[in-house]
Amino acid sequence: MSNNIKKIAVLTSGGDAPGMNAAIRSVVRTCAYYNIECVGIYRGYEGMIEGDFKHMNARSVNNIINRGGTILKSARSKEFRTEEGRKKAYEQLKAEGIEAFVVIGGDGSFTGAMIFSEEFNFPVMGIPGTIDNDIYGTSFTLGYDTALNTVVEAIDKIRDTAISHNRLFFVEVMGRDAGHIALNTGVGAGAEEILIPEEDLGLDRLLESLERSRLSGKSSSIVLVAEGDKIGKSVFELKEYVEENLPDYDVRVTVLGHIQRGGRPTCFDRVLASRMGVKAVESLLEGKSNYMVGFIQDKISLTPLDKAVKGKSEIDRELLRVSDIMTT
Amino acid sequence: MSNNIKKIAVLTSGGDAPGMNAAIRSVVRTCAYYNIECVGIYRGYEGMIEGDFKHMNARSVNNIINRGGTILKSARSKEFRTEEGRKKAYEQLKAEGIEAFVVIGGDGSFTGAMIFSEEFNFPVMGIPGTIDNDIYGTSFTLGYDTALNTVVEAIDKIRDTAISHNRLFFVEVMGRDAGHIALNTGVGAGAEEILIPEEDLGLDRLLESLERSRLSGKSSSIVLVAEGDKIGKSVFELKEYVEENLPDYDVRVTVLGHIQRGGRPTCFDRVLASRMGVKAVESLLEGKSNYMVGFIQDKISLTPLDKAVKGKSEIDRELLRVSDIMTT
Amino acid sequence: MSNNIKKIAVLTSGGDAPGMNAAIRSVVRTCAYYNIECVGIYRGYEGMIEGDFKHMNARSVNNIINRGGTILKSARSKEFRTEEGRKKAYEQLKAEGIEAFVVIGGDGSFTGAMIFSEEFNFPVMGIPGTIDNDIYGTSFTLGYDTALNTVVEAIDKIRDTAISHNRLFFVEVMGRDAGHIALNTGVGAGAEEILIPEEDLGLDRLLESLERSRLSGKSSSIVLVAEGDKIGKSVFELKEYVEENLPDYDVRVTVLGHIQRGGRPTCFDRVLASRMGVKAVESLLEGKSNYMVGFIQDKISLTPLDKAVKGKSEIDRELLRVSDIMTT
Amino acid sequence: MSNNIKKIAVLTSGGDAPGMNAAIRSVVRTCAYYNIECVGIYRGYEGMIEGDFKHMNARSVNNIINRGGTILKSARSKEFRTEEGRKKAYEQLKAEGIEAFVVIGGDGSFTGAMIFSEEFNFPVMGIPGTIDNDIYGTSFTLGYDTALNTVVEAIDKIRDTAISHNRLFFVEVMGRDAGHIALNTGVGAGAEEILIPEEDLGLDRLLESLERSRLSGKSSSIVLVAEGDKIGKSVFELKEYVEENLPDYDVRVTVLGHIQRGGRPTCFDRVLASRMGVKAVESLLEGKSNYMVGFIQDKISLTPLDKAVKGKSEIDRELLRVSDIMTT
Repeated sequence: MSNNIKKIAVLTSGGDAPGMNAAIRSVVRTCAYYNIECVGIYRGYEGMIEGDFKHMNARSVNNIINRGGTILKSARSKEFRTEEGRKKAYEQLKAEGIEAFVVIGGDGSFTGAMIFSEEFNFPVMGIPGTIDNDIYGTSFTLGYDTALNTVVEAIDKIRDTAISHNRLFFVEVMGRDAGHIALNTGVGAGAEEILIPEEDLGLDRLLESLERSRLSGKSSSIVLVAEGDKIGKSVFELKEYVEENLPDYDVRVTVLGHIQRGGRPTCFDRVLASRMGVKAVESLLEGKSNYMVGFIQDKISLTPLDKAVKGKSEIDRELLRVSDIMTT
Repeated sequence: MSNNIKKIAVLTSGGDAPGMNAAIRSVVRTCAYYNIECVGIYRGYEGMIEGDFKHMNARSVNNIINRGGTILKSARSKEFRTEEGRKKAYEQLKAEGIEAFVVIGGDGSFTGAMIFSEEFNFPVMGIPGTIDNDIYGTSFTLGYDTALNTVVEAIDKIRDTAISHNRLFFVEVMGRDAGHIALNTGVGAGAEEILIPEEDLGLDRLLESLERSRLSGKSSSIVLVAEGDKIGKSVFELKEYVEENLPDYDVRVTVLGHIQRGGRPTCFDRVLASRMGVKAVESLLEGKSNYMVGFIQDKISLTPLDKAVKGKSEIDRELLRVSDIMTT
Repeated sequence: MSNNIKKIAVLTSGGDAPGMNAAIRSVVRTCAYYNIECVGIYRGYEGMIEGDFKHMNARSVNNIINRGGTILKSARSKEFRTEEGRKKAYEQLKAEGIEAFVVIGGDGSFTGAMIFSEEFNFPVMGIPGTIDNDIYGTSFTLGYDTALNTVVEAIDKIRDTAISHNRLFFVEVMGRDAGHIALNTGVGAGAEEILIPEEDLGLDRLLESLERSRLSGKSSSIVLVAEGDKIGKSVFELKEYVEENLPDYDVRVTVLGHIQRGGRPTCFDRVLASRMGVKAVESLLEGKSNYMVGFIQDKISLTPLDKAVKGKSEIDRELLRVSDIMTT
Repeated sequence: MSNNIKKIAVLTSGGDAPGMNAAIRSVVRTCAYYNIECVGIYRGYEGMIEGDFKHMNARSVNNIINRGGTILKSARSKEFRTEEGRKKAYEQLKAEGIEAFVVIGGDGSFTGAMIFSEEFNFPVMGIPGTIDNDIYGTSFTLGYDTALNTVVEAIDKIRDTAISHNRLFFVEVMGRDAGHIALNTGVGAGAEEILIPEEDLGLDRLLESLERSRLSGKSSSIVLVAEGDKIGKSVFELKEYVEENLPDYDVRVTVLGHIQRGGRPTCFDRVLASRMGVKAVESLLEGKSNYMVGFIQDKISLTPLDKAVKGKSEIDRELLRVSDIMTT
């Protein structure tokens, strides 16, 4: 590695996700490995603007690989969306001698990094950290695998009570724009139906499907609903609708909510984070900038940030088909 | 054991709770041990009325000790509240040669058993199975310990994200009439404040407490709210109220819901269920009837069903005090 | 699908792995979807020889997707390695009208299937089920992801006690021929050193590494050791060796053992199993035979069984490098 | 509270146990509540002798209630067993202005505290922290409930693989002098037989029991063995013995080892620790000394340290009987 960068910063931005700490650790340790100084920035771009920095060495990140959340904390910054805010941030980085940064976050965080990088000709790298897996350029975002398991464990619990009472549950999971969580956990938890933003099942087909499932002898039903499902009804409205049209059903609703964001990361997320942190730092040292590190087709890869931001992470149509077959 | 009972039935009734399967297993195996026939009744009193019975031997309950829910299923029966319904149930039991039953459930289930027992001079025993721990005559109901751990694990996850964003969370847990879950998980998860049915904190003191917590340097706050909290506001209303009065706070809400009822039982619940099943069957064989098996002061004990139903399970005032000290 | 197959069997063979039940369920449900009869064979090839069959429909596999082990049980069969044994098995399949089978297992199971298929011109498909991930033609075997998480959770617990006492632990994990589990969980759990069959670290470098780690201020050390590590010493011998050469160390040993094989499958393993079952059945219906279903580069794929058996699943050299950097 | 103590120290000593951090937190917060200074002593009596102290306030213990191990670290100190060592320790405490201490640990730690207290007329209180539950004067030691659940979860995993292969497993759990863990987890995990230090089953009866279990149709067997089991054979010797005498059995062995000491504490252990910390500090402030805080018959209580050390924590004979009935 023969680039002249001597000090790299790392920050987490946007919604937190399990694995962010493992990625911070990886960036810090990779810097240590290459004898580069490393600075942690607190509270995302907000802390960058305020100069809320902390020097980090290999020991600063001991025993955080298994913790949820982010020790650097995260925030959404309105000020960083203004030229003035970014100017302040640049001054802070300059004053501190920071020559590049790695931002762990989602679309919004990458857009900010891109603009900043262009305005000040500043090297940046992105690591996709969000449970929603809705980012183009990677098959897995950090936190996604952990969230899948958190949801599946919750639905396993709900299934216990659903079976005991012959009930139908609508379970709302995260995913305003993307149905990845709902689709995968729906298959993983054996849900009878899955409602996602990418596909309009239609209320009629939902009723048919529930009736078919009941007549086939299933004693309980679970319907996974992504926040942004295409059917356009909340889980509470769905409950009312089904109760009106299928009065035999005892219907309940659960909104899983914020438990999906937290928790100790899975092995997969920890390993992925470790790989991504190494790649981010080494890419900066090779003189690269404005890329997002991704994991595609079993390999670490780079995607230009603007592509990552503009591209769409498609739902897996083949898995939708598998889901249909499984609910036979 | 020298009583003449030769056939005992077991049923689960009311809301399901982790540990019910372990209790069923224990009743069945204890019957087998004493060479008594054992019959499982499906769907609580509903199935009793319909004669939905199944003969069970020691092998019928293999590998269920670690499963949530109840393999006998549960239901609430309106018909059993009528004399006619109970008469039907009695005919079914008689036709099957059943001479006593053990019901695993809560207050409502015990009341039904008591009335039935008087009307038909029929031996019954109750085992307290409910996550709420709101039954007089036992320090622990089946499922309570498991629910506490489910809640605490969920709040640990929420804490990750609360810390990462310096947020305040209102978390609603089960407990319409009793604050046992909220109080114990509040202490266990280090909640900053706990709102329960038994104690009116008052909105002013809540605000004060939150402010004090923030000023003392805590970066996140979690407030546990029992469904039936005395303050009389839902978690959604509490969020609005705090946002109006403490605009610095970023407030979120989570309703844990039905995940609290399911899940593999903890070791404590499995052992408790095993003890209770033995005691229930042996008491019937000793000619006893109309008791609830409880666990008080480290020992299995019996409480007359009418006392169990009328008595009130008091909140632990000393633990309330501990909770106050912990949130210093 | 226009093949004439009307009855397909499914069996699990060799060591059990989490996700096998999910794969059985998928095979059964896919058969139901295509109106094909499905037969479960108990205890692998042993049960095939004995005709230990059970007809299965979509409802036979309700609520097994989340269970570890295999409801069809598994075994290793010596008799099936003989021509006579295989002949008996063929007679049984023929008598039952079974026209093809799907075997879920590892290398040995596939070899058996291949020979059988050639001898009797019988259509077979393989699904890789083993926690070791040591099969060519798939990036993930069923059970591997679950085992990784089981190991990482165990090491997280060991880390608690290692830190509290400033201790060094040697932890042995499964992997006689392949270091996948040790390498990935080593990175995931932040192990200080990883000993695998594919790479000879050497005892001298191990000592150096441990000393460097201690001098750098780490208060505890965990060394992951695959069963078949190249260094050729058991964890017990390693303990003795280190105690002799680094007397300052308080060394402990843990052999994780069979807990690695069991447990509820992760979401990843459940989804993978669901995909693989569909592909296996559909491939048979398309007239294909003698393939293993794999998952490579984010896609379901087929690899001829003989290649799967002869090929070697290589360790990820890039991840080895990441591991080195992480232990800076 | 009207005692003159102004500075209290807290230390953890002996083997670590889940819940120790929750107890440290409780001691620290209770001191803060009463405006008493609090000092953490690192590495038990070793650190006391070396003056390895750290001032702690309410914020020092944020977010540790859910962590395994002990942030104060633990050690066994030979030097503290000498008069000279204790003298050094006393000098250090005096120099720091510490007027009393709370020690969280087991028998050995309490003996040290007692001698120290007498020699220097120094107020001390003990909190029982050990997973073994082998301390007189409390129905539950800190960490015991967590360890029970860790063991039961491990055995649930082993059961998956035992059932799949019709195997017999000998599983060794901690408990050199006491069978509490083996007995309770044996009942909780549905073990077919339980070998503990308090009761000599005898090898003949073990064989009989295994045969009876197999003939009754059980497809797998798990035998729980406490480290100090009375039969006097290691799990490896037991395996050999059974293989010789019951050649039909496929026998395996697992030694659970150190995973039993770590892990996030259960809700029960966190609440217990919170209660105990409050009681320990308040007792010192009331002028009490030389007591162990316990939890007996659903209430916090005090037992003189010498009784706690000399007394024996008896195995629950009634639960042994329940265990026998369950394995019918």
